Formats: sequence, C-alpha cells, structure tokens
Amino acid sequence: MGERMSRRGLFGLGAAGAAVVGAGVVGANALLDEPPVAHAASTSDPFPFYGEHQAGIVTPAQDRLHFVSFDVTTDKRADLVELLQEWTAAAARLTQGKEAGAFGAVGVPPEAPPDDTGEALGLPASGLTLTIGFGASLFDKRFGLEGKRPAALADLPKFPGEQLIPEISGGDICVQACAHDPQVAVHAIRNLARIGFGKVSVRWSQLGFGRTSSTSRAQATPRNLMGFKDGTNNLKLEDADLLQQQLWAAAQDGSAWMAGGSYVVTRKIRMTVETWDRTSLAEQEQIFGRNKGEGAPLGKKAEFDPLDFAAKGPDGQPYIKVDAHVRLAHPSANGNAHLLRRGYNFVDGSDGLGRLDAGLFFIAYQRDPRKQFVPVQLSLAKNDQLNEYIKHVSSGLFACPPGVRDAGDYWGRTLFE
Amino acid sequence: MGERMSRRGLFGLGAAGAAVVGAGVVGANALLDEPPVAHAASTSDPFPFYGEHQAGIVTPAQDRLHFVSFDVTTDKRADLVELLQEWTAAAARLTQGKEAGAFGAVGVPPEAPPDDTGEALGLPASGLTLTIGFGASLFDKRFGLEGKRPAALADLPKFPGEQLIPEISGGDICVQACAHDPQVAVHAIRNLARIGFGKVSVRWSQLGFGRTSSTSRAQATPRNLMGFKDGTNNLKLEDADLLQQQLWAAAQDGSAWMAGGSYVVTRKIRMTVETWDRTSLAEQEQIFGRNKGEGAPLGKKAEFDPLDFAAKGPDGQPYIKVDAHVRLAHPSANGNAHLLRRGYNFVDGSDGLGRLDAGLFFIAYQRDPRKQFVPVQLSLAKNDQLNEYIKHVSSGLFACPPGVRDAGDYWGRTLFE
Ligand code: HEM
Ligand code: HEM
Repeated sequence: MGERMSRRGLFGLGAAGAAVVGAGVVGANALLDEPPVAHAASTSDPFPFYGEHQAGIVTPAQDRLHFVSFDVTTDKRADLVELLQEWTAAAARLTQGKEAGAFGAVGVPPEAPPDDTGEALGLPASGLTLTIGFGASLFDKRFGLEGKRPAALADLPKFPGEQLIPEISGGDICVQACAHDPQVAVHAIRNLARIGFGKVSVRWSQLGFGRTSSTSRAQATPRNLMGFKDGTNNLKLEDADLLQQQLWAAAQDGSAWMAGGSYVVTRKIRMTVETWDRTSLAEQEQIFGRNKGEGAPLGKKAEFDPLDFAAKGPDGQPYIKVDAHVRLAHPSANGNAHLLRRGYNFVDGSDGLGRLDAGLFFIAYQRDPRKQFVPVQLSLAKNDQLNEYIKHVSSGLFACPPGVRDAGDYWGRTLFE
Repeated sequence: MGERMSRRGLFGLGAAGAAVVGAGVVGANALLDEPPVAHAASTSDPFPFYGEHQAGIVTPAQDRLHFVSFDVTTDKRADLVELLQEWTAAAARLTQGKEAGAFGAVGVPPEAPPDDTGEALGLPASGLTLTIGFGASLFDKRFGLEGKRPAALADLPKFPGEQLIPEISGGDICVQACAHDPQVAVHAIRNLARIGFGKVSVRWSQLGFGRTSSTSRAQATPRNLMGFKDGTNNLKLEDADLLQQQLWAAAQDGSAWMAGGSYVVTRKIRMTVETWDRTSLAEQEQIFGRNKGEGAPLGKKAEFDPLDFAAKGPDGQPYIKVDAHVRLAHPSANGNAHLLRRGYNFVDGSDGLGRLDAGLFFIAYQRDPRKQFVPVQLSLAKNDQLNEYIKHVSSGLFACPPGVRDAGDYWGRTLFE
C-alpha cells in the first residue's frame, strides 16, 4: 500500500511480451506493416502525444472507442482554461501508459482519494489516443469566445429523415478516446471526468468496437455490422497532398487558432439489422455498389480496383446503380469532397422491441464540413437506398484544435490566448 | 460474389500471424501459460464445442462479453426444440471460427438473404464460447415443462436495497457469448437472434469488457472499475474437487437432466464511480479488505497470501474489518459456499445526470444458488460497506444444461427427451 506504480512497469513486458499483446480486430493488426508516419511499433506501444496535429485523426484507427461529450458547468473562463491545462497534463501521461496523476491509484497519502482510478494498472498504453474538440455552444458569452467561432463550425442543416435525440447530440467539448483495449479507453475518459468534477458534466458517451474504417493502407479493411468492408476508399494517412487540402484547417481558412486542427462530425446511426438480415445478397450488394465478400466494386474483381461508374453490365444498366451508396458518396459526385472516416460499430443492448440496438457510430474528420460532410450527407439523405435500413439518432460537430506542441502547451491554447 | 468463404481462410493466418492476434486485456494473455484443461493454444484459436460440460464456464475467461436474454414467442414445443437444434448447429460452427450457416455471408443463391450476417468474415474464432441457460419462466405449460423445473432454479428472494428493472431482468433463455474480440461475440448473438426470428425475441442484452474475474490460475487477475483486482479468491479450473462439489449439478441433486450442467446468476450492478473516486485510498481498501496495488489481504504482502480474519493490527482491530467485502463473501462465513465468478465491466453511455453509466455485470456459476449465491448475497446486501457505492439493477437466474456430446446431440436435449 502506498507505493507508486508505473503501469508499464507492472508486468515488465519486454519486446517479446509486447509483441503478442493488445491486438484486437485481428486480420488488420496481424498484417500491419510499419506505416510511414509516427506509429506505435507494437499495438500496445504509445503514440506520441505532442505534435503539430492531435493524434487520433490520421493515426491508424485503433479497435475500440469511448467517445464522450461534456457540458461545461462553470461559467468562469479561468476555470475552463485551468481544466484544459489539467486535462492536457493527464492526457500526456495517460497516452503514454502512465496513470492520470503523479501519485497514481495507490499513491500517498492514503487519507486522500487516489489521483488515478486504478482500473488500468498493469495495462500498457494500448495505443491510446485522446482527441479534443470544441462544440459551437462553447463559443458564447460565458467564456468570451463569441468572436472566435470558426465559420466552418456552422450548425449542420436539418437532413431529411434524421430523428435526432437532443440528449445524445451536441455538447460543449468532446473527447475521443481510441485504444486497442476498451478498459484503457474507458479509464482515460473516466479520469478526465473525475478531474473535471464540478466544472464539466457528462452529456453523453458512446462505446464502440471494431473500427469501421481503415485510415492507413497498411491496415486491412474491417467490416461494419451490415457485413461489408468499410473504409476501402477512405482518405488515408498516405494521401499527403489530400490531407493538406481536405483534412487540416489552415490559417487562411479564417480562424488562425484552428491552423493544424480539423473538424469532426459524429452521427450515431442506428441500423435495423433484423430487416437487413432478411434482404437478399444481390440487393445488399446493389445498395452499396460493392460486393460483400471482397468489397470489390460491382463489375470488378478486387477490393481496390477503381470505381468505374460508366461501366455497364450485360443488361445495359450500370453495374453501380445511380443510387448506390458509393456513387452518391464519391468525391466525383460531391465537388471533390473527401472525408476521413473513423467510425465504430456499436451495440447498446436491445431496444425494448425485441431487437438489438446496434449500428454505426459514424465519425468523420475534414477541413470544412460545409463543403464536405454536409453536401455528401444531403445527397445520401435524399437518395441512398440504405436509408431504408438506417436512422440517424444523434449528431455532433466539434472543432478539434491543433496538436499540443510540448509540455508548456495545452489543448486549445491558441483559442484562449 | 457467390463464392463460399471460410472465415479463417480469408487471411490465411499462419502460426506467426496467429501468435500476435486477438489478445485483449493485456497482462493476462501475455503471461498465459498453457492451462491444464482444454484450451486454445493462442488467443485466437477455438475452444472445443462438444464435451461433458458447456464451454464458457470453467474455460479461462475471455476478455469480451455479449450476454443476451430471449423470450420465446412461439408456444409450440416442436418449434422450440427445432430452434434449439438449429442454434446448436450454428454454435458448433461459430465457435470454430466458421460462419453461422453452410452458405455463409456470400453464398449462393444471391436472390436469398445470406445465412450469415458477414461482419466476422476474416476474423478467427477468437476463443468464442456460447453457453445457453433456461430461465424459470420456460418451465411452464406452453412447452409441457412444468414438471422438469429443477428445485435449484427456485426464484431468488428479494434482497435488501436492490432496485431491479423488470425489462432487463429474467427471460426464458439466455446465451452468454464470450470472446477475445467483441465483433466475434456480437456476431454470434446476432446470428442466433436472426435464426430465431419469429420464435424468440431479444428481451435484453448486455455488452461487457475486461473480464473482472480470472477463472484459471494461469491468468493474471484483472481489475474491476473500482480499480481493484477481482477474482483472486475465485473458484478456478484447477480446483478439480471443488468444481465437482460446488460447480457441476449431479443426477442426485434431483433433476437428472441437469447432470453436468450448472446454474448461473447474473446481476447488473451499477457503480456510482464518481462517489467512489472521491473516497480515500485507505477507505477503499478497508471496504474490500485488500489493498489496491497488489490485491494483498490487508496486513499481508502478496495477492495470494491466505486471508487471516483473526489477525489484528497495531490498533487492536482486525486488519480485515468485520464488514469487509472479502470477509462477508468468504466461504468460511457462508457454510463453505463457493462461486465461480465470471463477470465483466460495463459502460452503457451516461445516465442523463452527468455521470457515466458504469459498473459490473456480475455472472456467477454454481451447483445450487439456494446454498451459494443466495446466502452470500443476503449477507452482502445487509452488511457490505460497498453498498454505499453500488446498486443492483437487473437479475437473472438460468439453468445451464450439460454440454453437447457430439453432432447428433443438441442444447437441452436431456430436458426435452
Ligand atoms: C450506417 C451507415 C453507413 C454505412 C453502413 C456505410 C457503409 C459504407 C460502405 C460499405 C462503403 C464502401 C467501402 C468504402 O469505400 O469505405 C462506404 C463508402 C463511403 N461512405 Fe458510407 N456508410 C454509411 C454512412 C455514411 C455517411 C453518413 C457518410 C457521409 C455523409 C458516408 C460516406 C461514405 C463515403 C465518402 C464513402 C466512400 C465513397 C467512395 O469514394 O468510394 N457513409 N460506406
Ligand atoms: C460491484 C460489485 C462487486 C465488486 C466491485 C466486487 C469486488 C470484489 C473484490 C475486489 C474481491 C476481492 C478479490 C477476489 O478474491 O476476487 C471480491 C471477492 C469476492 N466477491 Fe465480490 N464484488 C462485487 C459483488 C459481489 C457479489 C454480488 C458477490 C456474490 C453475491 C460477490 C462475491 C465475492 C466472493 C465470493 C469473493 C471472494 C471472497 C473470498 O473468498 O476471499 N461479490 N469481490
């Protein structure tokens, strides 16, 4: 009792130990080559916390998610800044596999509550990334931020068919925790909530698993709960030029404090899997425009064969129907708009009507939602055949500031200084 | 399109590939020696489906859970038996890393719905076990089973302080899916629900992670969401004599059809983690009677040091308080009653009051709940200091029949023949 512990130290994992641990959705990690940017060598190793951009955006998607949205309950700007500083210090530790505070879960003095909750003691960093974002509601009088709201953080329009539940939508601040081990992701969010006690309260939170998009060409493409490969034509970390054009905000976009940051849209999309499961294979494949086994474009053979929207089948009709999901969502149909998708599957128990409450927690990063998510989703909401099987039930939009440069910097400093 | 696929075949994992995949809560698997009973060699390998007992009870606890409770909606005994046969055939395939039906997710004909939902294509068996149980409500006139209800399946008494929600309690049939990968566990339950369409409906379902008990001495003890090691003094698969005495039902217990089976109690226990996190370390340790770092009994050094309830500290008081959790729950205080605990942590989003909805989904197997779970829980419900931080919100009790012997056998055959 009372002895300080380093999480990583506990089992003293050597290289051999580290090699077998922490992998999750399987094929993906087994096949992972060394990606070209900053990347944890084994799946339990840490990602660097400091850098130009926040981790958790282009870093190869981990297998588990705990996403939380907080409302700020203090109305003092100084309290909020102090909290962001405390959170940054904790995040710098947590992402490196350490406990949230210097005294840990079993630190001195025993008369005080521990400064870490302890459930991740003995677990490695597990590739944890923590990514913060600021919702439109933060930019109000309380904190004197009215003038700082980026134009790109414009409220999303109402989309046809959506049935949003306000209690699980929006929020002042979001934190996305991704890791290979859910216990590590949950531990991180919980300790941020603990540190924020009295200044923020949890508005909503979402667990996810089986990342539904690859964000690196070194990752095998995972499958969503409709059984299809998801992420084939995603924006990936190898697409250096596109990332500059389409992912990272720049000073000339109008809000200098966001340079190097990005905007994230979250949509909780409920699937009526029971109906989907009674749909024929041919119909399922036409809805997406890709086949189920390989993920190849209809009319082609391999997953990464290029989409050819003009190609016609023996019946004279295009292989990829005019209202197929990949056609409607493709950059060529949306003014060359790309998205970096980073969503997760969810199952939240059952819905009280005898069915599983399951679906996709869609997450997409981009430089300007007005030019990217919004037009794509407007087109999908109007024409996508998939709409018969899905329902958007929550929505979030957050401005994710640039990365924390070093130990003297903090999350959102450019916004407050 | 249309080609049959074997899940394991897809990535052609060799031994080297298999070695790095599928591990979850980390220290545990990294340190796993070869346990003494039937065990998957790597964490992605399958457990045998056929045997004297159902897998998923003493088999080393995997890291992820999807537990489902179904209500039977048909009132025809023949329909129910047919469903159990279909489920057994699917379970025999799924647990071996195959798809739910012979034609798979991309089988012929494309005009029909696939006979697997596809989201586990390419994933290995991941140690999946599927364990079925029958609730008291199944033993009624509908199926002519009134006379077969085991005495040990007596309704649980009302325990002081519990606040059970009927909608997430009970049910006619439960299935516990455990695996190292949540996508695999979810896929299995979903395909059983799909196969049962029109005969059963989902009453409730629960996801869990970070198994909160070790069930083998070869596993490192994991931590629950209060940050303590959980499972130290659990009944374990190495305890051969105790398992015969305390885990497996026998013919002489009164219900011959249950010989080789076991009874499972589930309790969803909500933790008010925010309050817990503001409690001092010393108080947390006194509540359990063990320290937080090592999990050692108070007054001792190492996790597996034996509990000494008589030992007194310098203040003349027992190191382990009279109302400490481990004292109240210990066999010596409960007529030598043991439990095989196999619970999981859960986080179900937030509770609408600014807090995470988190806790322990408690699962315990035993030979006779009247002599095991009930006295232990009565004592805990009355005296455990932990009650200040927890609330039981759901309850389940199911008779888990013996194992399926071979391909000619099915789940529950002894009950129906
Ligand atoms: C439950 C809902 C959804 C499911 C199941 C789903 C599934 C898929 C699948 C299977 C693909 C093909 C593989 C790939 O290239 O990744 C795909 C592509 C894509 N989806 Fe979705 N999607 C959903 C919702 C959305 C939403 C809401 C958006 C954006 C508003 C979106 C944007 C895209 C884009 C941009 C592509 C790539 C198209 C291309 O360039 O080829 N999807 N989606
Ligand atoms: C949220 C609720 C609970 C928590 C956090 C919890 C936690 C713990 C912990 C940390 C230990 C010590 C380590 C170990 O030996 O496993 C323990 C022991 C034990 N618990 Fe619990 N427990 C909870 C509920 C229950 C319930 C409901 C029961 C049964 C009715 C139970 C039965 C036991 C037993 C039998 C032991 C072993 C005692 C011994 O022989 O040393 N626990 N529990």
